Amino acid sequence: MNIDMIRAAATRIEGHARRTPLLSSPFLDAIAGRRVWIKPECLQHTGSFKFRGGYSALSALAPDVRAKGVIAFSSGNHAQGVALAAAMHGTSSVIVMPSEAPQLKIENTRALGAEVVLYDRATESRDEIGDRLSAERGLTLIKPYDEPQVIAGQGTCGLEIAQDANALGIKNADVLVCCGGGGLTAGVALALEADAPTLRARPAEPQGFDDVARSLASGTIKRNAALSGNICDAIITPQPGDLTFPIMQRLCGSGLAVSEQEVLRAMAHAFLRLKIVAEPGGAAALAAALFHGDEIEGDDVIVTVSGGNVDPAMFARALETL
Amino acid sequence: MNIDMIRAAATRIEGHARRTPLLSSPFLDAIAGRRVWIKPECLQHTGSFKFRGGYSALSALAPDVRAKGVIAFSSGNHAQGVALAAAMHGTSSVIVMPSEAPQLKIENTRALGAEVVLYDRATESRDEIGDRLSAERGLTLIKPYDEPQVIAGQGTCGLEIAQDANALGIKNADVLVCCGGGGLTAGVALALEADAPTLRARPAEPQGFDDVARSLASGTIKRNAALSGNICDAIITPQPGDLTFPIMQRLCGSGLAVSEQEVLRAMAHAFLRLKIVAEPGGAAALAAALFHGDEIEGDDVIVTVSGGNVDPAMFARALETL
Repeated sequence: MNIDMIRAAATRIEGHARRTPLLSSPFLDAIAGRRVWIKPECLQHTGSFKFRGGYSALSALAPDVRAKGVIAFSSGNHAQGVALAAAMHGTSSVIVMPSEAPQLKIENTRALGAEVVLYDRATESRDEIGDRLSAERGLTLIKPYDEPQVIAGQGTCGLEIAQDANALGIKNADVLVCCGGGGLTAGVALALEADAPTLRARPAEPQGFDDVARSLASGTIKRNAALSGNICDAIITPQPGDLTFPIMQRLCGSGLAVSEQEVLRAMAHAFLRLKIVAEPGGAAALAAALFHGDEIEGDDVIVTVSGGNVDPAMFARALETL
Repeated sequence: MNIDMIRAAATRIEGHARRTPLLSSPFLDAIAGRRVWIKPECLQHTGSFKFRGGYSALSALAPDVRAKGVIAFSSGNHAQGVALAAAMHGTSSVIVMPSEAPQLKIENTRALGAEVVLYDRATESRDEIGDRLSAERGLTLIKPYDEPQVIAGQGTCGLEIAQDANALGIKNADVLVCCGGGGLTAGVALALEADAPTLRARPAEPQGFDDVARSLASGTIKRNAALSGNICDAIITPQPGDLTFPIMQRLCGSGLAVSEQEVLRAMAHAFLRLKIVAEPGGAAALAAALFHGDEIEGDDVIVTVSGGNVDPAMFARALETL
């Protein structure tokens, strides 16, 4: 896993992924006490950065392997990213989801061209279903974060951040990344190391689900005590990845943890000042920039808004904080 | 008023205005029955395309004139665009607003560096106040649309649309523009004439407030019967501008008129599929693309989402249509 893989991924996704801008608002700067720059990956295809990793992985497969199709386990942003990337490559995708996944997510994933296979979490094994389908059809598994070509794809977001930061003359800034398994955080950290080495990636997580922050602090992989019970569901994973953790350990600053209320307020500020839609997990880094300024260094701070796939009721809840 | 003025404005605003992308979603394509491309000017500085015109006008002033400051009459997007453009030029701005303007708009305009002067619509004349302040201080009036350098600034949005459409190979498409006084519509039409002459600008307006559509249909300037009573307040003006109307008459296709319910649904779809915040007036063109497909020609349609300055209660109302 190295910067050359990220640059190769950037070449492959050019013209296919969106080149998202860096946004800012003087009102957010005033809250944060420094200049805040927002990388809105909610504007990416399928509404999250996950399309980058999905497209990178699909485009890196040998044509005859890719032609047999791919498979992913996800009920969320990774599912949609892989489904669209497969469709754009003219191949098929199977997305394995728990049968209790929201109907809207199932329908959206199907609409993007995927075959959705539902399983009963109480009685069936996801991995067994995946193994059987893969064996029968020769499908390639696209893992959500612990996969080099997926990390490389997410790293393209970091190349863009580095390019824009250099153009703006931003030298001394933390780059806060909404962090689940660490694919985006590790990819961004590698890109910054190469192209903007004075900037420092730092993971942002929900309070109580800060496995990456605790793992970084202790030097060994720590698990989350629970995997549900927080609105930032998109960035809650059991533990940092085996591939992503060593990268984060080598390159990242300490993690930041934000409350649900801070996340909802960050979503509301993104609505009011940036005119973008952030999902709870996608607003964790912005919440850290706005409300944890004393834990951040530098005159500027750069944050990812990593996704915008939020249902209207949750969004309305965020707006009520204004 | 010609294309050279738009190109000169583009040179002046480069690096100051945001270069907004073209967004799309397969879900919107399915509703519209053709490919839909969205130019999200809600992501522009101050949340609307008005910043382009404001910056263009400020940057076109002679330095000694500009140094005395500018004045504008507006309680909306033009006010914020002019205020920020003035601040970015290191000069002062006076924004004259009715005293019943929403407190949030007054505060936002002040926060962008403007001096806000309130007047009582029942007892005071806006123009008299403006004339007096201009005479006392040597302020230059920046009109919201019937001003060549403002039209030139809005036209830069059209240059970007033309550039992206050409890169995408889009040859046969209507370009629907949310239309009030016609500054954006005329500017976009001129830009398309020069750089993408097979594309056709068409104004989109609220039903019952379609002065531009009626003016185009009859060949003479028609007035709106009322100036309030519709959620698309940002694009309701008394009549087409004296400068903008001849340009629209020469270059634009017929106007489209959309209902309030269609506008709210378009805002909800922009939330759900594009992750952007559209204000009602900013969603008129998208509403036309999604729900008036039988009045549109071409395999593709391009729409401006011209602004995103909407209060949370109105946005929540839009989300309820989902």
